[in-house]
This record gives sequence, structure tokens and C-alpha cells, in this order.
Amino acid sequence: MPFTYEYERPSLTVDCVVFGLDETDLKVILIERGVPPFQGKWALPGGFVKPSEPLEEAARRELQEETGIEQAFLEQLFTFGDKDRDPRGWTVTVAYYALVKLSDHRIQATTDASDAKWFPVAAIPALAFDHEKIFRVALERLRGKVRYQPIGFELLPEKFTLTQLQKLYETILRQDLDKRNFRKKILSMGLLLDTNETQQDVAHRAARLYRFDRHRYEELRQKGFNFEV
Amino acid sequence: MPFTYEYERPSLTVDCVVFGLDETDLKVILIERGVPPFQGKWALPGGFVKPSEPLEEAARRELQEETGIEQAFLEQLFTFGDKDRDPRGWTVTVAYYALVKLSDHRIQATTDASDAKWFPVAAIPALAFDHEKIFRVALERLRGKVRYQPIGFELLPEKFTLTQLQKLYETILRQDLDKRNFRKKILSMGLLLDTNETQQDVAHRAARLYRFDRHRYEELRQKGFNFEV
Repeated sequence: MPFTYEYERPSLTVDCVVFGLDETDLKVILIERGVPPFQGKWALPGGFVKPSEPLEEAARRELQEETGIEQAFLEQLFTFGDKDRDPRGWTVTVAYYALVKLSDHRIQATTDASDAKWFPVAAIPALAFDHEKIFRVALERLRGKVRYQPIGFELLPEKFTLTQLQKLYETILRQDLDKRNFRKKILSMGLLLDTNETQQDVAHRAARLYRFDRHRYEELRQKGFNFEV
Repeated sequence: MPFTYEYERPSLTVDCVVFGLDETDLKVILIERGVPPFQGKWALPGGFVKPSEPLEEAARRELQEETGIEQAFLEQLFTFGDKDRDPRGWTVTVAYYALVKLSDHRIQATTDASDAKWFPVAAIPALAFDHEKIFRVALERLRGKVRYQPIGFELLPEKFTLTQLQKLYETILRQDLDKRNFRKKILSMGLLLDTNETQQDVAHRAARLYRFDRHRYEELRQKGFNFEV
């Protein structure tokens, strides 16, 4: 690192893979590009980092500008710098993945995104840049991570039933889980708080509602507790 | 992302946190900076990414140039972009962590590193830039990761005893493990191959030598097997 040497510098962007969960599907938010390159193509929300802007702040700003989402669980995913990933020249992107409670968010396209829309992860269209690769890495991270951290809770409403929680794991992991084993395991973790409330306005027998115990989770995480389901 | 807009660009560097394990300690390799800024201070090996150079390639190149290490298990750790992390101006660094078999590597300082040396992780000197922060993130990642992936094997010789393996976990996790439970658990994972060899030239009773079954690990990983010890 000689002091006087000055290498050529890359453009720096952030991109966000935002997951949401509805009744039936795990979904990802995509924006339709309003400007070249790849105008009219679907892409991950993202854009250029401003000079000296903190990276996570840039990701949250772009997310807000392009989708209207203001609150999200956000973690850095991976930094992609392949030579030909952007036709405008050498561009490095710091990718983030985000989890949002779908019910909280009406999405709205703004700035240079002409449209923003949720797609089921199993049915995404062709994407601009190397965004399909980034999306795949994010999906793999999510699937790996729900096995040892209860991040899935970020996708659920504040209060949820055990059936909803099981459905979440089944959807993300793409496998059926045995109801009795699942309940035994998840309750034994001590991560759920009974709200002493039941579902309202349901046709079937109203199920008990739970909350996620974030404090208890932090305690367990310090000790290296394993959350595998 | 308007097509014509051109933001200011950051300098881009890579930095490597390289861990090794000897008889007694978990160690990290540091280089003494031969040039400003922070001349004479200890730092992580690293340097500027060349135009369009793949990021991992840049990390391996810098590692080789500054320490002589050519073979290492290397994974991207995190990208750091805080405003004031480099006195030369806006500089974003993609950090990697690496695991090496200490016995394989005589280290040698070259290029602009004036010295390279292994330090016990519990006794590192003050570091240049935000390198102490990067080091802490890497150490946390290593401690978290050995609980659910057998990456610790990257730190051991090709053939090792169960005692060496237990010592590895105890050193990284900073806790004593019960010998019987540890052996039962580690053998039940089916990840160890008996070499039918025993230690040579030891004063005590020669212990059996094992190898890590990489093929079996890949099989289990696909299924989401948990390696927690």
C-alpha cells in the first residue's frame, strides 16, 4: 500500500434482497428499472452509495426511495465485484438481505424505479445485472440461517399462532414438518411468550397467539444456543 | 440510478484476518506497516484491489505478497465503509477471514510490509485503521461458525488425534469440554475417517490418527445437518 500510489477506483452500489411472507408464499420485492442500463427489466432495489455514506444507511435509503419500506431487519449479505457485472464499467456492490412483515408494508415505487412488486421466490422474472446470482445467495443464506437463528420471526406479525410459525419454516425450508415434533421443539426453546389471547374473526377454532421473546433470544445467543428446527 | 449521474468513487481495498492454531494458542497473522499511514504500526495483511480484479483474487494476492501464504481456506467476512476509517479519504474494504494449517506455513514479509508475525488472539497489539474492529468481527465469526460447520478442520494437520481436535474446540470456544461427551458426539457425526495409523515419536501412549471426511461433510451439509459441539 504505498502512500503515493493511486489505483483506479470502482463505482460503489448497494442492492437489497427483501423477503416477505404471505399466507402461501415466500416473496421477494423487485423493481422495474426506469432508466438504462437494463431499462424495463426487473432488478433488486438499490443504487449508488453517496460519498462517505455508511453502507447500511445507503441500503436503507435506497430501499425507502425505491419501495417505500422504512422498517426492515437488514443484514449485510456479500459483496460482489465481478468484472462484467455492470455494463457501465467496474462496479462493486455491497448486497444486503432484508426481512419485512408483509402486512406492515404497502410498497410504492419512487425515484428511478418505475414499478415495485412482490414476486414468489419460485417465480421471479429474468433480472438485470447479476441480480439473479445475488438473489440466489440471499435465499440460500435465509434457508441456512433459519436453522440456527430464529430470524424467521422477522417475517411474522407481532402476534402469531404456532400454525403460522410452522408454515413459515415449511415454506422457507420447502419441507413438511411433523406438527407434534415441531411444537415440542419450538416450545422447548423457551423463545415464545404466550399472549393469553386467541385469534379473532376466524371460522375455525381460534388458536392461541404467541409473541417472540427477543430478550430470551439474546440471552441464549450469548451462550451459543442452537435453534435448529 | 440515473444513467448519466456519476457519484464520487471510493478507494477499494481487501484485508485478511488469518487464523492459525499451534500447540497452545489460536493465533492471527499481523504485518508491520512499512509505509504511511500508520507506518510502523501492526495491521492486517491487505491492500488495494486492482482495476476489475476479482475480490477474492485480490485477497489471495495480498496475502501471498505480504505473508508468503499461498494456500488458505478463505471466506468473505464483511465489508467495512465507515467514513473515517482511513486518513487518506473514503476507502471501503472487503474483509476476508482465512484459516491455515500453521505447520505448513513459514511466513515471510514482502512488498510494503516490513515484518509479518503470528500473535495469540488474546494478546494482539494496537492495530492501524479499524483493523481491531475487523479482527473482532472475524473472531466472532470463527467462534460462531465452528458450532455449526466443521471449519475447524482447516486449522489442523491432515492427520490428527481426537485430543488435538478437542483442544481445537476448547481453544476457539474458550471452554473446557468433557472428553467422553466430546468423543461420543464427534464420532457420531460420521465425519472422521480412521487412518489406521497412530502417532509417531511420542513419549506417551501413541494415539490413533484421524482424517476429516470432506465428502461425507458435503453430503450432510446439503441436508442441513447440524455440527454443533
